[in-house]
Amino acid sequence: MSVIEKAIAAIPPVDEALSERAQQRLDSLTKPRGSLGRLEEFARLYTAMRGDVQARIRNKNVVVFAADHGVVDEGVSAYPKDVTYQMVLNFLNGGAGINVISRHVDARVTVVDIGVDHDFGDVPGLVVRKVARGTSNMARGPAMDRGVALKAMEVGCELAYELIEQGADIFGVGEMGIGNTTASSAITSVITGRPAREVTGRGTGIDDGSFLTKVRIIEKAIETNRPDPRDAMDVLSKVGGLEIAGIAGLIIGAASRRIPVVLDGFISTVGGLAAYELDRKVRQYLFAAHRSVEIGHAVALERMGLSPFVDLNLRLGEGTGAAIGMDLIDLGLKIMNEMATFDEAGVSDREE
Amino acid sequence: MSVIEKAIAAIPPVDEALSERAQQRLDSLTKPRGSLGRLEEFARLYTAMRGDVQARIRNKNVVVFAADHGVVDEGVSAYPKDVTYQMVLNFLNGGAGINVISRHVDARVTVVDIGVDHDFGDVPGLVVRKVARGTSNMARGPAMDRGVALKAMEVGCELAYELIEQGADIFGVGEMGIGNTTASSAITSVITGRPAREVTGRGTGIDDGSFLTKVRIIEKAIETNRPDPRDAMDVLSKVGGLEIAGIAGLIIGAASRRIPVVLDGFISTVGGLAAYELDRKVRQYLFAAHRSVEIGHAVALERMGLSPFVDLNLRLGEGTGAAIGMDLIDLGLKIMNEMATFDEAGVSDREE
Repeated sequence: MSVIEKAIAAIPPVDEALSERAQQRLDSLTKPRGSLGRLEEFARLYTAMRGDVQARIRNKNVVVFAADHGVVDEGVSAYPKDVTYQMVLNFLNGGAGINVISRHVDARVTVVDIGVDHDFGDVPGLVVRKVARGTSNMARGPAMDRGVALKAMEVGCELAYELIEQGADIFGVGEMGIGNTTASSAITSVITGRPAREVTGRGTGIDDGSFLTKVRIIEKAIETNRPDPRDAMDVLSKVGGLEIAGIAGLIIGAASRRIPVVLDGFISTVGGLAAYELDRKVRQYLFAAHRSVEIGHAVALERMGLSPFVDLNLRLGEGTGAAIGMDLIDLGLKIMNEMATFDEAGVSDREE
Repeated sequence: MSVIEKAIAAIPPVDEALSERAQQRLDSLTKPRGSLGRLEEFARLYTAMRGDVQARIRNKNVVVFAADHGVVDEGVSAYPKDVTYQMVLNFLNGGAGINVISRHVDARVTVVDIGVDHDFGDVPGLVVRKVARGTSNMARGPAMDRGVALKAMEVGCELAYELIEQGADIFGVGEMGIGNTTASSAITSVITGRPAREVTGRGTGIDDGSFLTKVRIIEKAIETNRPDPRDAMDVLSKVGGLEIAGIAGLIIGAASRRIPVVLDGFISTVGGLAAYELDRKVRQYLFAAHRSVEIGHAVALERMGLSPFVDLNLRLGEGTGAAIGMDLIDLGLKIMNEMATFDEAGVSDREE
């Protein structure tokens, strides 16, 4: 069995009995029952995922996978391809949006070169796991071989294991890759059967003309490669990306060790969708943090039945929405563990 | 002139030019323009409110006003009246929801007895500004005299001045008062002209029968007292509450000193609405944090044109939604001030 097959086989069901025990505790606290809404839900879910009523969040880790996309040659992005590696350096220097947000919520940022078309040399802090120097142009042929996509998933899965060894108890998944909304829309279109134009947005902010080009290129990539919707590995390799495969792998690895993963925007959610199509059990370990303005995002979330809770009109990626989401999940756990009960506080409960 | 009249006269317009300067800075940062959505909006608004491009958030203060309501005698709440003072003690002991959330977001909690029907004696940490031992039953006559309502507003206004002296640079407003959703629905109904049943919810969680009672009592209070919708002080005194008046006063005091106020749920938003009806300028200093499940909340927010950004199905009050909101406003400012620009980071900007 491959690393990924083994990990999938090892994903346990979440512990529903612990979810009930968490709710009993929440109901004993000095507040009307259910009045902390989704914060209570997060505490319940996190406890059930971890399978441990004592579980706390002490080590938030946002993993940002970076990779390049051959399809950028078709003019689908408002930014030049070099921005991928330039932003990787910006992440390492602490100057990007994800750095500011992660500092604010006390999360560590792990930056992974899984497929950037640039030679970084020896850069402190960068996790170098380059599987290829970007994908090929999917408008002309498969983005990558099946073996390359599988390798990228294994990189993600094994990285999850390493970081869990180091103490990570919740992951956020982010990405950087000029052109990766194009790949994400293509994957979403194939898997859900929705036409490209219904799952394609403006990415980093392209104009009307470029938007039409983007839709046409996605249609062409699908026609050219004919990925099989029932075979997620086929879809991922033909019209996907290395960072998307890395995210899918990290999610599978984390789920196999009962560590929750917080999805970010459209691209990371598509990574989650690829993992979910490989095995439905994955979904039990996923939180959807934020609702992106990319229209394909809602379609991907809906397919998995996930409901996001951060609605700040973000469309940056990098894991920014996930980092904010992790902080609210942490807050839900603190509510459950730090509030006084009616008995402890000497507060009268409601008259039933 | 009264304290409140003086404060209202002193409210300056926000500095729109600074809002533009803030946006220019935001547009120079290493992200697609506008891609951090409402976080960028918060940075712009906070800067314009403070009238200072250097303004930072260093001292978050959640002010929780507590008071009792005579209308509780009519059976409008699921909880007994004693819960008001019991919860005040819980706040002081750090065991309530607002305490846990405030610790998480590094905010100070100021607990004010503005009208609790209980003798606390000498309790460390409590700010004692008792104007009356609760309101009278508004179903049978005015909740309070106009002079009492004005006094409660002055208490709020002067407390804002004191806390600003001590360094507060953003306020959240919270409340505790069994029966106060009844007063809030009554105020909203009178000011907006909407029937009681369209602005009344289930508060802490009453059943169908109690809900119908609640609506009928609100209708009766309005019929009995005939408050003048164009006279916010008349509405506040006849069908309001001491904590609601305190919140209105704090908002006016804060606005007169350019200090932003983050509204919480339905009750604090109605405090904001009362202040807004006294002077429309107040609105410029308000943030609406969260969307409560109380249906009257949306009506009050809509009247002021405020759009909340925390959507976690909270209905606890106490300032819990406001505290979460303050933290996201703080994050918006950090984004503006801590991210690298395209030039600093050597990242290529988009191809225009």
